[in-house]
Amino acid sequence: MKIHSYQHKVQYYETDQMGMVHHSNYIRWFEEARVDYLEQIGLPYHMIEAGGILSPVLEMHCQYKTKTTFGETVIIQVGLKSYSGLRYTIGYEVVGEDGKIRCIGESGHCFVNTEGRPTSLKRAKPEWDEIFKAEITVE
Amino acid sequence: MKIHSYQHKVQYYETDQMGMVHHSNYIRWFEEARVDYLEQIGLPYHMIEAGGILSPVLEMHCQYKTKTTFGETVIIQVGLKSYSGLRYTIGYEVVGEDGKIRCIGESGHCFVNTEGRPTSLKRAKPEWDEIFKAEITVE
Amino acid sequence: MKIHSYQHKVQYYETDQMGMVHHSNYIRWFEEARVDYLEQIGLPYHMIEAGGILSPVLEMHCQYKTKTTFGETVIIQVGLKSYSGLRYTIGYEVVGEDGKIRCIGESGHCFVNTEGRPTSLKRAKPEWDEIFKAEITVE
Amino acid sequence: MKIHSYQHKVQYYETDQMGMVHHSNYIRWFEEARVDYLEQIGLPYHMIEAGGILSPVLEMHCQYKTKTTFGETVIIQVGLKSYSGLRYTIGYEVVGEDGKIRCIGESGHCFVNTEGRPTSLKRAKPEWDEIFKAEITVE
Repeated sequence: MKIHSYQHKVQYYETDQMGMVHHSNYIRWFEEARVDYLEQIGLPYHMIEAGGILSPVLEMHCQYKTKTTFGETVIIQVGLKSYSGLRYTIGYEVVGEDGKIRCIGESGHCFVNTEGRPTSLKRAKPEWDEIFKAEITVE
Repeated sequence: MKIHSYQHKVQYYETDQMGMVHHSNYIRWFEEARVDYLEQIGLPYHMIEAGGILSPVLEMHCQYKTKTTFGETVIIQVGLKSYSGLRYTIGYEVVGEDGKIRCIGESGHCFVNTEGRPTSLKRAKPEWDEIFKAEITVE
Repeated sequence: MKIHSYQHKVQYYETDQMGMVHHSNYIRWFEEARVDYLEQIGLPYHMIEAGGILSPVLEMHCQYKTKTTFGETVIIQVGLKSYSGLRYTIGYEVVGEDGKIRCIGESGHCFVNTEGRPTSLKRAKPEWDEIFKAEITVE
Repeated sequence: MKIHSYQHKVQYYETDQMGMVHHSNYIRWFEEARVDYLEQIGLPYHMIEAGGILSPVLEMHCQYKTKTTFGETVIIQVGLKSYSGLRYTIGYEVVGEDGKIRCIGESGHCFVNTEGRPTSLKRAKPEWDEIFKAEITVE
């Protein structure tokens, strides 16, 4: 798995009355990091959608470790954990300014066409399939 | 203007680190109240969209008076302030459990067709036009 | 596990450009259902916080099954899956108007005092501990 | 008024089923731009809060001009429109990648102490008052 990095500056509207980031926002940061990651590997999500492929979220897992506070810039380490041509899993690690892990997560996805039918990326877009496979390869 | 009522229970994820509802959420509550209002007058928004008409927000105004806290159930008074066949304005008053006004707002809207072109409701859907006109009438 | 029910009406601001509810919102609905659940069993969350106990989220898991659309009213079945005095797990099942499961989830929580230290509910609030234990009991 | 610039990359979770950014998010972007602005002028908001001063939103006004789409990076022009020692107004102009104005807005704010009482920045923090006054000056 190749690790890519994404930065997010914590916003005031992301805090809650516990004085820290509300846990639902990490799921949104994962999406930000995932979208940025796909851009970094040459598969921007708007291009995927323009190509008639959607990639909905099937599963989400998240472990909260330490609290994140307003104004902090967190780094999200993101990479492709598994890929089968039909499905893939992306892993996330959110690290705070103090170097501590804030949260660890994983999201599972598939590909569907515009009618919502499961689609094999391998068959539908072999050149994109190659990109995904290259990401998963340990060099 | 006929006044309709909508209730919203304040959620934890709507608070911020000031220990009160983040101001952006009132804009979302206005939408909840507006959608409920359109349902109450027989024009549910999903029916409007299914009829090929979208009704985007052109303008939003909001005055914040007192703070709203987690767990509170607020009442939103909502009504049609103006309607021209092409545009309309909806007014909102959010009242807390203590009877105090939390926030007063107003949103301006138009109608567009699925290509995004401004549309006269009067010409496109005369029966919906009648409903809007009846709401504005002072009896 | 005793099952309680919570209803949520899907809002326009909860949709995304796939034309369905954005996956991050289910995490917020789980919180709505959890807060309502604690109220139903006599432990409203604001009372817990007023008693000097916070209950942060440690873990979140969510499997997305079918898409939820604007205007739909979903039912969330919620119950206490495990409880140790120090930690607890709540389970969720979101069911759509067509009777199909939209999403299944689980959240893990602990108790901390106002200084953020892990706290045993059993020792700190034995009467609340009893309520939790009664929820977990199979009758 | 001195104009400062802030960039925001549009996220997928900020879209709605109209296929564009939901109008409530512009209010959040205004906050992002405001927080960044305060940082740029040497008054980061977390420092203001640490100094015992909160600065709630009193009023919000927003005119929506053109639609913003996923993946776009918008530029927000932000500046201090008025300042009285007790209150201030911040103006915003959101510009899309095509150079068109997406949205124009304005927010009104006051200062309160930790008990929630209106506070004169001029008296409470004369050095911060100087910074605000310098921003408003036309050179």
